[in-house]
Amino acid sequence: MWKIVQDSYDRVKNRNYETIFTLANGYRGFRGYNEFSMFRDKGNYIAGIFDKSTAQVPELVNFPDPLEVNFYLDNTKLSVDDLEFKYFTRTLDMKNSVLITEVEFKISEKKHIRIKAERFVSRNNIHRYGVRYIISGNFEGKLLVENVIDGRTTNGTFDPINRVRHYNIIEKRNMSPGLLMVSKTKDSGITVVEANNLLIFSNNDNVAKNRRYEEFGDYIREIYEVFMMPGKNYICIKYGVTYTSREIEDPVKEALVDLEEFILEGFDIELERHKEIQKKIWEKINVKIEGDELADKALRFNLFHLASCGSEYDAKVSIGAKGLHGEGYKGHVFWDTETFMFPFFLYTQPCIAKNLLMYRYNTLEGARENAFENGYSGAQFPWESAEDGREVTPKWGLDYYGNHVRIWTGDEEYHINSDIAVAIFDYYRATGDEDFMINYGIELLADTAKFWASRVEYNQKFDRYEINRVIGPDEFHEHVNNNVYTNYLAKWHLSKAYEFLKWLEKRSPEKFVKLITGLGISKSDINEWLEISKKIYIPKREDSSLIEQFEGYFKLKDYVITEYDENGMPKWPKGVNLSKLNETKLIKQPDVIMLMLLLQEEFTLEEKRVNYEYYEKRTMHKSSLSPSIYSIMGIKVGDTHNAYKYFMKTVLVDLENNQGNTELGLHAASAGGAWQAAVFGFGGLSVDKNGMLHFDPWLPEHWQSLSYKIFWKGLQMVITVKKEKIIITYGKEIEVFVKGRKVRILPASENVFPLEN
Amino acid sequence: MWKIVQDSYDRVKNRNYETIFTLANGYRGFRGYNEFSMFRDKGNYIAGIFDKSTAQVPELVNFPDPLEVNFYLDNTKLSVDDLEFKYFTRTLDMKNSVLITEVEFKISEKKHIRIKAERFVSRNNIHRYGVRYIISGNFEGKLLVENVIDGRTTNGTFDPINRVRHYNIIEKRNMSPGLLMVSKTKDSGITVVEANNLLIFSNNDNVAKNRRYEEFGDYIREIYEVFMMPGKNYICIKYGVTYTSREIEDPVKEALVDLEEFILEGFDIELERHKEIQKKIWEKINVKIEGDELADKALRFNLFHLASCGSEYDAKVSIGAKGLHGEGYKGHVFWDTETFMFPFFLYTQPCIAKNLLMYRYNTLEGARENAFENGYSGAQFPWESAEDGREVTPKWGLDYYGNHVRIWTGDEEYHINSDIAVAIFDYYRATGDEDFMINYGIELLADTAKFWASRVEYNQKFDRYEINRVIGPDEFHEHVNNNVYTNYLAKWHLSKAYEFLKWLEKRSPEKFVKLITGLGISKSDINEWLEISKKIYIPKREDSSLIEQFEGYFKLKDYVITEYDENGMPKWPKGVNLSKLNETKLIKQPDVIMLMLLLQEEFTLEEKRVNYEYYEKRTMHKSSLSPSIYSIMGIKVGDTHNAYKYFMKTVLVDLENNQGNTELGLHAASAGGAWQAAVFGFGGLSVDKNGMLHFDPWLPEHWQSLSYKIFWKGLQMVITVKKEKIIITYGKEIEVFVKGRKVRILPASENVFPLEN
Repeated sequence: MWKIVQDSYDRVKNRNYETIFTLANGYRGFRGYNEFSMFRDKGNYIAGIFDKSTAQVPELVNFPDPLEVNFYLDNTKLSVDDLEFKYFTRTLDMKNSVLITEVEFKISEKKHIRIKAERFVSRNNIHRYGVRYIISGNFEGKLLVENVIDGRTTNGTFDPINRVRHYNIIEKRNMSPGLLMVSKTKDSGITVVEANNLLIFSNNDNVAKNRRYEEFGDYIREIYEVFMMPGKNYICIKYGVTYTSREIEDPVKEALVDLEEFILEGFDIELERHKEIQKKIWEKINVKIEGDELADKALRFNLFHLASCGSEYDAKVSIGAKGLHGEGYKGHVFWDTETFMFPFFLYTQPCIAKNLLMYRYNTLEGARENAFENGYSGAQFPWESAEDGREVTPKWGLDYYGNHVRIWTGDEEYHINSDIAVAIFDYYRATGDEDFMINYGIELLADTAKFWASRVEYNQKFDRYEINRVIGPDEFHEHVNNNVYTNYLAKWHLSKAYEFLKWLEKRSPEKFVKLITGLGISKSDINEWLEISKKIYIPKREDSSLIEQFEGYFKLKDYVITEYDENGMPKWPKGVNLSKLNETKLIKQPDVIMLMLLLQEEFTLEEKRVNYEYYEKRTMHKSSLSPSIYSIMGIKVGDTHNAYKYFMKTVLVDLENNQGNTELGLHAASAGGAWQAAVFGFGGLSVDKNGMLHFDPWLPEHWQSLSYKIFWKGLQMVITVKKEKIIITYGKEIEVFVKGRKVRILPASENVFPLEN
Repeated sequence: MWKIVQDSYDRVKNRNYETIFTLANGYRGFRGYNEFSMFRDKGNYIAGIFDKSTAQVPELVNFPDPLEVNFYLDNTKLSVDDLEFKYFTRTLDMKNSVLITEVEFKISEKKHIRIKAERFVSRNNIHRYGVRYIISGNFEGKLLVENVIDGRTTNGTFDPINRVRHYNIIEKRNMSPGLLMVSKTKDSGITVVEANNLLIFSNNDNVAKNRRYEEFGDYIREIYEVFMMPGKNYICIKYGVTYTSREIEDPVKEALVDLEEFILEGFDIELERHKEIQKKIWEKINVKIEGDELADKALRFNLFHLASCGSEYDAKVSIGAKGLHGEGYKGHVFWDTETFMFPFFLYTQPCIAKNLLMYRYNTLEGARENAFENGYSGAQFPWESAEDGREVTPKWGLDYYGNHVRIWTGDEEYHINSDIAVAIFDYYRATGDEDFMINYGIELLADTAKFWASRVEYNQKFDRYEINRVIGPDEFHEHVNNNVYTNYLAKWHLSKAYEFLKWLEKRSPEKFVKLITGLGISKSDINEWLEISKKIYIPKREDSSLIEQFEGYFKLKDYVITEYDENGMPKWPKGVNLSKLNETKLIKQPDVIMLMLLLQEEFTLEEKRVNYEYYEKRTMHKSSLSPSIYSIMGIKVGDTHNAYKYFMKTVLVDLENNQGNTELGLHAASAGGAWQAAVFGFGGLSVDKNGMLHFDPWLPEHWQSLSYKIFWKGLQMVITVKKEKIIITYGKEIEVFVKGRKVRILPASENVFPLEN
């Protein structure tokens, strides 16, 4: 349940496996490419380092690759594309966060060579990574081993037109032994230092002979000869470190010092420390499902990868839509982070969650500039965010014919501002971290609320505030008016900002004064926010709980999904014109339902049920963000028949490549949605208007149990759901609700509550 | 008979085909790599440009590649390794010296794209090359076409330890449109400019849209979008030029001017002119065999490639052992040129032959330094020659275990000095070019003879001159004394030098005086050379015609070849210890027999027969230089049963890769030997002591005729051999011998002579 295994080789799948086998540690991610094939998209991404130069928008930079190692026998490179092999397996050992590759090549009838590689990206010292190769053969012969730093990488290997190289190589050094390369991003001049070394020994003696160093332009290498005897083990270890000018003034010096220390300490020490930390991480994040091995393992896969993207150290980075796993969406940060990934971190690793919010705090200046340029006040967070909070959504794309197609999300998908507010609110609710709110959170809330106050449009005729020409979560419909998701959240946002500012005024008058002065608002502005909030227009049918997704939605041409493909996903209804989806009621992903999940305490069960029934059969799920939401909501409203299907679709997105684009990186939001579906959906966890925990779990028929842990108010709570009961342990006395009944949790003991009836 | 076709695709054979499909024009050679595969060894060699830097010895430099073109559909590169294709054929059109590639990819059941490429390296303007792609598809879609200059090439792609990059990129230029790259060799700072441009049009209109230029380090590219409609033809032409600082002071300026002119004139004009010139070349070099298609075509293949290496323009380059086709032997020049390739050029393109001799003249300084460093006088031409005549044979190699193995050929294989003398003599004999002899040839003869005079060792006991510790053509035996090939040629060489100097003294006393002053010799020195010549020791059995290959050879352990492999080539006799071949009588290639062929007028038929019978069954043919010699000699002595077999082995060396290393380049000496076997062997051509032509042809049973042309004394002679007669035409009256009978050739008519009886 802890291993993802590739046990056959098909070159066509290399890029997918690179994503699946990516190792990351919040500081950096290495795509899990395979040393033994030339068909690969190398990826060396450092969180937070973007560059635009000749690209259309800033991109998460693909830096020089220091992982490459080549083996040659008889001058032939050992490659699974060219040579026969007895086996080739790769195993992602999720428990230890180690990638293991095992291969045995058949050079000839009589000549075999076996290599086992263990690769890790250290959780202990985040600048370190290492690979250990254990090599043995049944022959006497000369093996060439080549250590490389490849400064020829580019962004967009899969996109020939838009391929860009975001750095220049400013130094290449022969370290005799070892290699060093310094690259520098073209726009912002951030330097990244890669330094590595390759040691090869057998029986405690060095066996790496006849070193030759060469520079082939920006590709540098050192190559050794190893004279192999049959049956002996040859251990080849690559030690590597990465430092950048983002974190330290003299990264070359630091790299040299750390690399030397790494080698002195030894591979095993660092690996052990890394495993220890990974173990502690699992103790916080693991979710266990009994009775469904695939679900258990697939969910764990998602948690493993999502957790690998979070940084405990860096308050200036967030997590891009594709994690540190690939170049899809250029590494940009979307609402995916706050709405889909953030809850996972909030409840399992709150300090990472805090850093995700600090990223927004630290990019406030960019958000303020966005607002200013757009003619608004306050802070308008970008739909797509990179390094500094400026809007980096491309304004146009090219259709197949090369015609420019205007992209409007950067202009109109304002809801991101409130998605961030929701995350701040949830953070405070779960942690009670006043310090954060006082120093950062309330400023964020307030300045983004200030934006809304300037953005809303007063409709005198109806004496209401409208927000026109927007895009909601459902991107099939653009330039819509009064999208409920956007309006409701803005309404909620303004009132919460008002609440928190009032609270701050009492809690810390000096901070309050400093804040409002800094933001250029007055107390009467704040009062006005409340008034605006009360008058924000929410389109709704008088006579029913059904909510109109946006003004005029109900007038659109109706289509309802009646057919499903072999994966159980919606087929386009007959007669739909795909270039005129905006004229139909079909939606890309949950919009109204998304709102009802985010602010579930604001809607009744009846409202949820009615809207779920209405919108679920009009949702095409054309985003990997979609199924998990319906899984959760389905359980809440009692329509469980899709819940399991949608959950499995979500957890298998990358393992089965069911979106067809896993090669572009991890579906990070979907991974977050998977956790939410497990914990909020099956695990039944929610928080009510009063900040009390509720448990309304539901398990699929064949699941025997579901266990998870959360941090609540700084203490860990362990929850195990079985068919007929729920078991909760917590470090303090607390009252919670189980299936609507209030119960008391006593500390330091298993509290068991029945679930039937 | 004029086309070499590859009609299936097997990646494993790519490198062999690159050699087979190399296009060259004496100035430069491009390995014939295939645009549609990533498995390739690119080769862009400019005759005469070597560089050592960190390599062991100077190497013919592999420069940046300007040929690369990539096609993408739906962002997928069109590749025969990845996509299904209906057909993939490559055709070397030898008649026109054009390489044609035709492929039809099946992108999907319904989507096909066809591309036909014609590539040529111009014989008209030797700086120009071009490729025309004709593209059509049965779909509407966007094709990306990418023009590249790849400055990441290295020497030794097949040799990881010894891989070296011999240049630095000093300029990359976006020519908007078009690309330019300047590279500079590391040691000697020769700059090479590649400039190219890609035009794409359909129905006379430009269809190349949306150009994007990018530099990925030393790889630069421009990429276009072409919006294809079904059934239309899209013509994509790459125009390219190459200039270097070897021939012109400002190669960038020249390249820009010429490229523009090339484009203005148009692809077709240059191609037509190129074909015209190639046609004229065939009119001189073609040999035609009727009755044996394979022999005819295979021989033509050899002539095509050998001829493509010769330069009419450059007197400072020769032809390396692998032509301009690959990096085997690092592009070094061996006796392969003078002994094996030179006769072909001499008799079909004498101005190229003259340039080959001028190369030696122009590298005299290096030869003089070799002699001086070795403690001798005069000029000692190097065993392996590169740019300047200095010895570039590596002094050591590495065996499999990394142990150093001393290489002795550069120290001991002195016979090269006399191989050059033979070529000079043959040149004068065939052309009557006094001017060359007076100004260049006699100086070469004399200075190299001067070397011999200093090299011989006087044995007082026997009152003879010996040459000890040498290697002859047979490299199985090193450090031998009085190798007959070496001694006999030295003897001949000294006496010829004497003769020609005496001739010069009469012919042009001032030149004579200038020469002997320049060489620092006196008339008494010259007389002494004759005396030495008379006393050079030739080991021989008193009582027989059998010649001892070197002193002590007959005492070695005897092995005789009795078994042959499935290719008709010798198997090692049982019991032979391969690491002690020098203790046996087995020889690598003809040594005594080589001598008897070079100086055939010096040996009787009986001597030839006795030695042929003796040595032929002790020859392992472990060099591609070997079989052709036995083919010719076999015919001369009446042992024809092997002649055809050895001839076929020779002509098929690269077509069938029967040496197993065609990927390293053309077997250029073998190609020359193929011509010799056809013309000297089957065609029966020889020249006697009096400079008279003899024809003693012999045709294999199934051959109906053999036709060839030679230049003799400046006029072309056409010879057709049939079973029972020979037909000779010549522009002047001349007496020749046919089957030993003197006959008179009348000009401007077919002279027919019977061959039977």
